[in-house]
Order: sequence, then C-alpha cells, then structure tokens
Amino acid sequence: MNRQNLIKTALGKKEPDLVLKNATVIQVLTGELLTGDIAVCDGYIAGVGRYDGPHTVDLQGRYVSPGFINAHCHVESSMALPELYCQEELRFGVTAVVTDPHEIANVAGNEGIQFMLDRSENLPLHYFVQIPSCVPATPLEHAGSVLKARDLACFTQHPRVTGLGEMMDFYGVSQCDPDILEKLSLYRHKVLDGHLPSVPQELLQPYAAAGIQTDHESVSFEEAREKLRAGLYVLIREGSGSKNLDAIMEGVLREGLDTSRLAFCTDDKHLLDIHREGTIRCHIRRAIELGMPPVTAYQLATIQAARIYGLRDIGAIAPGYRADLVILEDLKQVSVSDVYVGGVPYRDLSLRPPMPPVPERILHSVHLGGISPDCFALPEQDCYPVIHMVPRQILTRKGILTQDEVSQGLTEGSLLKIAVLERHHATGRMGLGLLAQYGLRHGAIATTVAHDSHNLLVAGDSDEDMLLAVQELERVQGGYTLVQNGRVMATLPLPIGGLMSDLDVEPLTEKIQELTRCAYSMGVNPGIDPFIALSFLALPVIPEIRITDMGVVEV
Amino acid sequence: MNRQNLIKTALGKKEPDLVLKNATVIQVLTGELLTGDIAVCDGYIAGVGRYDGPHTVDLQGRYVSPGFINAHCHVESSMALPELYCQEELRFGVTAVVTDPHEIANVAGNEGIQFMLDRSENLPLHYFVQIPSCVPATPLEHAGSVLKARDLACFTQHPRVTGLGEMMDFYGVSQCDPDILEKLSLYRHKVLDGHLPSVPQELLQPYAAAGIQTDHESVSFEEAREKLRAGLYVLIREGSGSKNLDAIMEGVLREGLDTSRLAFCTDDKHLLDIHREGTIRCHIRRAIELGMPPVTAYQLATIQAARIYGLRDIGAIAPGYRADLVILEDLKQVSVSDVYVGGVPYRDLSLRPPMPPVPERILHSVHLGGISPDCFALPEQDCYPVIHMVPRQILTRKGILTQDEVSQGLTEGSLLKIAVLERHHATGRMGLGLLAQYGLRHGAIATTVAHDSHNLLVAGDSDEDMLLAVQELERVQGGYTLVQNGRVMATLPLPIGGLMSDLDVEPLTEKIQELTRCAYSMGVNPGIDPFIALSFLALPVIPEIRITDMGVVEV
Repeated sequence: MNRQNLIKTALGKKEPDLVLKNATVIQVLTGELLTGDIAVCDGYIAGVGRYDGPHTVDLQGRYVSPGFINAHCHVESSMALPELYCQEELRFGVTAVVTDPHEIANVAGNEGIQFMLDRSENLPLHYFVQIPSCVPATPLEHAGSVLKARDLACFTQHPRVTGLGEMMDFYGVSQCDPDILEKLSLYRHKVLDGHLPSVPQELLQPYAAAGIQTDHESVSFEEAREKLRAGLYVLIREGSGSKNLDAIMEGVLREGLDTSRLAFCTDDKHLLDIHREGTIRCHIRRAIELGMPPVTAYQLATIQAARIYGLRDIGAIAPGYRADLVILEDLKQVSVSDVYVGGVPYRDLSLRPPMPPVPERILHSVHLGGISPDCFALPEQDCYPVIHMVPRQILTRKGILTQDEVSQGLTEGSLLKIAVLERHHATGRMGLGLLAQYGLRHGAIATTVAHDSHNLLVAGDSDEDMLLAVQELERVQGGYTLVQNGRVMATLPLPIGGLMSDLDVEPLTEKIQELTRCAYSMGVNPGIDPFIALSFLALPVIPEIRITDMGVVEV
Repeated sequence: MNRQNLIKTALGKKEPDLVLKNATVIQVLTGELLTGDIAVCDGYIAGVGRYDGPHTVDLQGRYVSPGFINAHCHVESSMALPELYCQEELRFGVTAVVTDPHEIANVAGNEGIQFMLDRSENLPLHYFVQIPSCVPATPLEHAGSVLKARDLACFTQHPRVTGLGEMMDFYGVSQCDPDILEKLSLYRHKVLDGHLPSVPQELLQPYAAAGIQTDHESVSFEEAREKLRAGLYVLIREGSGSKNLDAIMEGVLREGLDTSRLAFCTDDKHLLDIHREGTIRCHIRRAIELGMPPVTAYQLATIQAARIYGLRDIGAIAPGYRADLVILEDLKQVSVSDVYVGGVPYRDLSLRPPMPPVPERILHSVHLGGISPDCFALPEQDCYPVIHMVPRQILTRKGILTQDEVSQGLTEGSLLKIAVLERHHATGRMGLGLLAQYGLRHGAIATTVAHDSHNLLVAGDSDEDMLLAVQELERVQGGYTLVQNGRVMATLPLPIGGLMSDLDVEPLTEKIQELTRCAYSMGVNPGIDPFIALSFLALPVIPEIRITDMGVVEV
C-alpha cells in the first residue's frame, strides 16, 4: 500500500481508482447501516463519504459488506486444490480463509504443509495458515508423517502463518507433554487453535491455561458458553457433516450472551456443497433467521474473525482496510451479487495464477503392503465390538455382538466388515472391525480420505469386493471407489495426497454426485452421507468408537 | 509464567498459590456475572471454578473485576513521578496504564522518554508507553527538544512500548510530511494514537487512511460516532480539565451504538484528583449511572482497552490472564475494597522499588535568557488580540480590543498580560499577549507546565510581580508560583523537568490545595481551574487562540 496515495485520495486530492457510489455500508465497527460512496486506492479503502472519479459503479443503495472470513477450514476436505476452493469461496463472498492443512500434513508432513503454502501463494483470496499441531492426531494410528515441535519451527516466520492449528491432544496438554508445550510455545505470540469436543468445564480450564485460544467443536449453547467463560473464542461451525449454528445461536439469543467473541467457520465442507450454497453466507442468513440483528451477524462473519486471528487490515469498511467488498441484493438473504478483492471484481482477477507443480511424494502417496482376500477374515473370538453409525452426526456408538450374531448380521446385511489399511509406508498394518447402520449391500466402498491419518478405509459385505476396492484405489493413487459383485461401479480419483482431485469444478462436482447416487443405490442408509460419515470413522479423537490401522479403539 | 505449573494448578494437581473463594466474577468475556473460586498460580489465573489451597481468601460473594486499564494518560500531568502516580492508580483499581510521556519529551527529548521508561521499569503496575510523535507539537513554538523519526527508531523494540503517541499534526499528516509518515511507518505494527479535536468528518478519512487508530478528543456523541465510523477507536476522557463521558455516553445509550470499540482514559488528571477519587472507576460508575449495563461498563474499563493496545494477557478473568483483580463492595458504586496485582495484594508489593536517579538535564531544565520588567511592555499598535478563557473548557475564544480598551481593561482588572518565555535553551525568545476571564488581581501567576512545549508561562496585572514570579520559578527550577504586591505568596516546586514534584503524595496534595486556595483568594474566576486551564493556554493544537514563545497564534 502507498500511504501517500491513500491519504491524498481520502482528502480528495487524488482521483480514486474506483468509487462505489451510493452504497449502503454495513458498518460492522459501529453496528450501523450507513449510506455513502466508497473510494478505493491501490486496493485499499481510502474513505467512505462523498467521492467521485473516472471509474465509478453506482450501487443504487445496495448493501456492501466487508468480505466474509471463514475462520477455520480444512481445504483438503473439499477434495479440491486451493485454487478451486478459493474460487468457490469467492463466488459467495468469502475473501479470506484461515486454513489448517492438517489432512495433507498427515499424508506428507512438512512437504504437504509447504505444498499448500506454495499453492496458495498467489491466490486472489487471503489465505492464512494455522500450522498443524497434531500429526498424527493420536498415538493410536500411523499417519504418513510424524511432526514434532522441531519440525514446526520452520513455519513461524511465514507471513501468512497466523498460528498453530487445532490442538487435539487434550491428554498431552493436561500431562504437560514437553513436545506439545514446545509447539504451543513456538507459536505463543500467534493464535493457538483448540479442538475440544464434549469436554467438561473443569477440563476446559487447563486447556485455556495452556494458552489455547479458540475452539470450533461446540455442538450446544451450554458447551459454547462454558468455552467462552473459560476464555476461548468460539468458532461456530456449519460444515458438510457438522451443523452447530442453530443449537448455539438459539441459546445465545435467548440468553442475550455477549456475541463479541464468536465467529463463523466450516471446518470440513465439500466442494459440492460450497459450489451450491457457499459457506459463511449460510451462517449469516441462518443467524438472521433465528433472530440475530443483521449487522451483528455480519460482525461475526467479518471483523470478529479478523480480530481473533490478528488480521488488522481486513474485516471492515473504513480507511486503511483492504477493499474486499461483498455487494448484496438482500441483507437478510445474503444474496451475493458481486465480490471485490482489493478493489477489483473477483472475476477480473487471475483465479488460476501459475501454480507450482505437485511434488512427486504427494502425487504418489498410496503405498500398501501385500494384501489378499483372507486379510478380511475375522479372528475367532467370543464377542466383537461393533461401530454403530449415528445418522446426521459424526459421533458413533459402541455395540457388542456374539460370534453368532455377527455371522447372522453379515449374512442378513445389517453388518459390514470395515478395515483400515496403513497406506503411507507399505507396512501392511491393518485394523479390522464391524460396522452397523451404514447400509451397503453386495459390495464394498473404499476411500483414502480417512481422518486424520488418511489411511485406506474399506467397508463391505464381500471380502472379494473389499479387495477389489483396495486395488482400485491403489491403481488411481487414492480417492473414493464403489465396487459391487466383482465390478468397479464408480471411482473418484483423488491423486493429490489421496485427498484432492485434479479435476476442475464442474467435472469434480458431477463425479461426486455420480458417486453419491451410486452409493445410495447400493443401499447406504439415507440418513448418512456415504463419504463424509465414512471418512470420520477412523478419527480417534471423536467419541465413542473408531477404527484405525491399529484396530478398533474406544475414545 | 510457568505453563506447566499453571496447567497443573488448573487441573487440580497442584495447589494454587492463592484461592479467592466465593467470588462474583465480572466475566467481561461473556458479559455475565458468575460465581466461583479464582485459583492463582505464579501471578496468573489458573482457573475459575471449584478450587482450594492453603492460602484462601473468602470473598463472601463480593464482586471481582479484572484490573482497570487507563487507556491514555500523561503521567507528568499529575505532577507526580511514575511511582507515586502508579500507587494512586492502584489504590483505585487501575493495574495497567498506557502512557504517553510527551510532556517530558518536550523538555528533555529522548532522555526524558528514557527516564520515564527507566523510572517505570520495576513498578507493580503494568506501565505501557506510547512514544511521543509530536515534539514539539507544532512549528509555532520552541520546545526543549525536536524529535524526528530517526530519533524515535530506538524505542520500537522496547517490550513495554505499545506504539506511537498521539499524532497531533493533522496538517503534516494530510500533507504527507515525509518525517511524519516515517514515524507512522516505524510503529505501523503497533498502535498509532491520534488526536483530533473538532475535526470534520471529511478530514477524518485521511487521518484514518494514514493508519491512525485511536482518538481521545471527542467532546460530543456525534463527534465520537463519526470517529468510530471512520475506523478509530474512541477513548472516552474524564480528566481534571476535560470531562467528555456524559456527552458521549448519553448518545451511545440513546442510539444503541455498538460499544465494542470504546475504552476509558484520563489524558491529563492531577494527582490531587486521582488521590481523591481515582480514575477509571469514575468512568465506570458514571456510565452505569447514565444507564449502561454494569458489565458493559466494566468491559470498556478492562478487556476493550487491552484489545486496543494488543495486551493479550490482561483485561479478563480466565485461565492464562494475569491475576490483576479488583475486589468491589458494590458493583455500581465501584467501591474498591482490595486490589491484587499478579495475585498479590498491592499493599504487599514494593510500591517504591529502587529507582534510577533523575538525570542532571532533567533536574535543571529552566534556562532563561536575560529578562527585565520592560520585557512586559506592550508594543504600540491600533488593536490587540485577546485570549478569552471559557469556564470549564480548555477551548478559548478570540477577542479584539483597541489600545484604549486594553489600557482600561488592565487598569480595571478585566484584562491581564500573559507572556510565554522560552525556558529550555535560554534564547530569550518571548511571546506577549492579553488574557481575559482569568480573574487574578494585583499580582501574577507563573508556571513551567505549559502544554506542550512547557515554556515558562506568566500572567498578571503587574510587570514587577510578573518578573518576580519568573525569577521565583528560575530559582526553584520550575513549578507553579503566585506573587502578589511584590511578595511570593506560594510556590509549588516541580524540579523534575519543571513538570513533576519530588514530594510524596500527602505533602504534594496539600501543597496543591494551598496554591489553589491562594489563587482563588487572589481573584481567579471560580469557573476556571487556576492551574490546568492556564497550562493549556500555550497549546497551539487546540482552538481558537493561544500564545507561545513566538507570540499569539490563531489555531
């Protein structure tokens, strides 16, 4: 930014590069709606008042919001590369994202983190990065990499690194694990993200005492309030799988709780969903529907997220802020008609700037040990733990069945086998278990998107189909596949780390829809997202029972 | 802070150093009043919940606020040294101050700034410093020092320096003066304070565009709102001279304006007033009286000031925050019964730690050129500008009188002569003018506290008494003095830079009271503070007419 130009433009001594005339400004700094012209210079807002210039756009009273900020997301979970992800976010008004590349880090360690930093370097959207703190997420699994504090030190000075990603290892924090404390200390002058699903109040205090500042796992108002009281910022999540806004916001509005330490995030949201409806605009619209004063909802979506992450020049419409602006047809519907980034309509920006190539290690990340159909034979034992899926939740419930009940369930189709195969270092390690409520018949489904270690997860009622599904994913180097009666029905290759596609938006969203249709036609329970729900079955930080490459674990 | 100890204490695995049992916590993070025990470890809050330990204090339900923060003050204006000032602030619950040593900087330049940094190094209260940006305040006067950007570069890394002090040179900012832009740039990652009395909206935009973030000069709600809209934080001032809270707050409450970018400050408040009533507690009490929800008022006094100045570990009661706590008998009266700093009752702390000596330059700062009674003879001219004081304001109004009217006014006592003598470098430069509405008869008053250059200001109706007053201040090396009919009536020596006393609190406050009584007995207008109002007559950044060592100036 050239300060002199900005000051002169603000004074009216220099013509603005752009004037947005007759705007109704959503002034998140005062909670007001104000009318005026917005003058832009060198990509920044010079002033709001009466301005003219050679390049004006008459907004005819339309609303203008600061660009929305997605306060916490995992871009890899969209299954798209950063450039595609950002393009879809921009379409719906998000001009800044705070990302945590911990999926790719679990596959490819620092090389994965650096790849996401490099790949997002020249994007039109502001792409901030929280460095993954927990790779692997727990000692109960094997990821592609193990990142210790010494590995993370190299990122502290990166200009787009805003802090340390979600600290999931609550046990390690409470035990004062030296490596964890060192990670927290490395990033102590930045923002330390947390991850605390369903933790009781008395355990929140030590977590906050460790210096952790945010959490995005609240599923109820009471949980969110306890976290706020303990000093954590609460990021309200609406993703593809987890939808927490209604529960939290209804309580906030009912109790009149101070909203100044809340912001909005998606955590994990698929490209298909973003493509259809965007992200943060959904939070704003729903919060207003629930009764939040509109400008307050926009505050959560903009200045409050910026404040949490120390982003001083975004999140508001005032002199010196970046001219990241969302033009809205309707305040309550959050219907986005145009988006400016640095004072330029986003469509005029280079949405696909030249990209660094994908490193070899990331392009070939599926390395399996020898497998055969008898891998999937259940060992003889008196009784077996069963993972019960819960519709519309990523939580699971534990069941116990006898050998006879298991045989009957597998035959009748009420049970599936589920296996997690270590896929990073070809160790041949495999965990085998049983799954209920998923609903597939006469086949198998497999994926290399299996939070957070992203091993190869396969489920099915036929050992042969399970084997074929595994082989198919090895062939395409990761993705999702559906197999039925010895035939591959559909495959979505995700060759970039086994997590992300190299397709463009349209073919990718079409492919996802095709696989989704196919999965339901194969009998998947309508209350369950066939892919997202499956991908979380291997995540041993979420209750109550999971499966990893080391076997079935209770959380 | 030892993180391990803090985490273990929070978990209940280690005994807290102190437990404040049965507190009613003013939870400024959520806007609630909550009950619980506050556990303290190593000076920090470990947790709020159920805690016990060998050292407990039962608060029996009394209110506990985070320590108050005075967001902008000039310690020198109290006439006391930092250690005395802080002791008086602590008594009434202020545990952190953001100071701007621009008075001493005008006398002694960088040596003055360094002296205030050194003198505040080991104080029990958190003493943050904004480096003076405008020494001298304007080109219309001569101060003891001239500080350019290159002079200020040495302070940027000091751990207690939070930014650049109030930028008063609006003209320089709007003209993109290179040295001013360099000063702003030097401190651009910290906080840039502003100073914008009565500036119209269209001139606010360039000021904010320059990166300036705060202002404490608003005297009306409308003015404060315009500044907030332009992106400035508004620090609401209640000092000895300027009292702006009622006007601003009534509007804020009436219009329901968002209060999240407001905080409280004193700017200039005398030790006598602080000793009698404190500082920030007066803001809180009055805001509540005016109808602000009590916890909101405490938010302005604590977390919001902390947020503005990037003070991450103060301003709230939650794990990881400093155990700076104010115990209150009454929420609305803000009656302070005890104050803890870092978990220790402030009275148990070393309130007068070993202090570095006062440098020679600062102890002998009054250097006058040769003077004689005929210095004060008015030049012959047709008409004369007159400075009219305005009761209860630091603003002035301009009048014009003929020679005859002036002669008559001086004889009748409705006019005084007023002179400003350069006193730093013995240049002999002097400005002479006329003063109305002050009200002194048969004598003179003189002071070396004359904002912001702190030259020697003298006013009186007798040339001989004026001369004697000047000589008296030269003798004691600065302060205030009153002379009547050839006799020194009372003197308050302020030998430290001509600004601060070396007396302790009691003798100092008694002396101030003595001088005040004496001034009124000599005829000073009851609506005018005899010292503060006089001290601002030389400040050429405040409208409408002032006097400096270069003469009478219109602002």
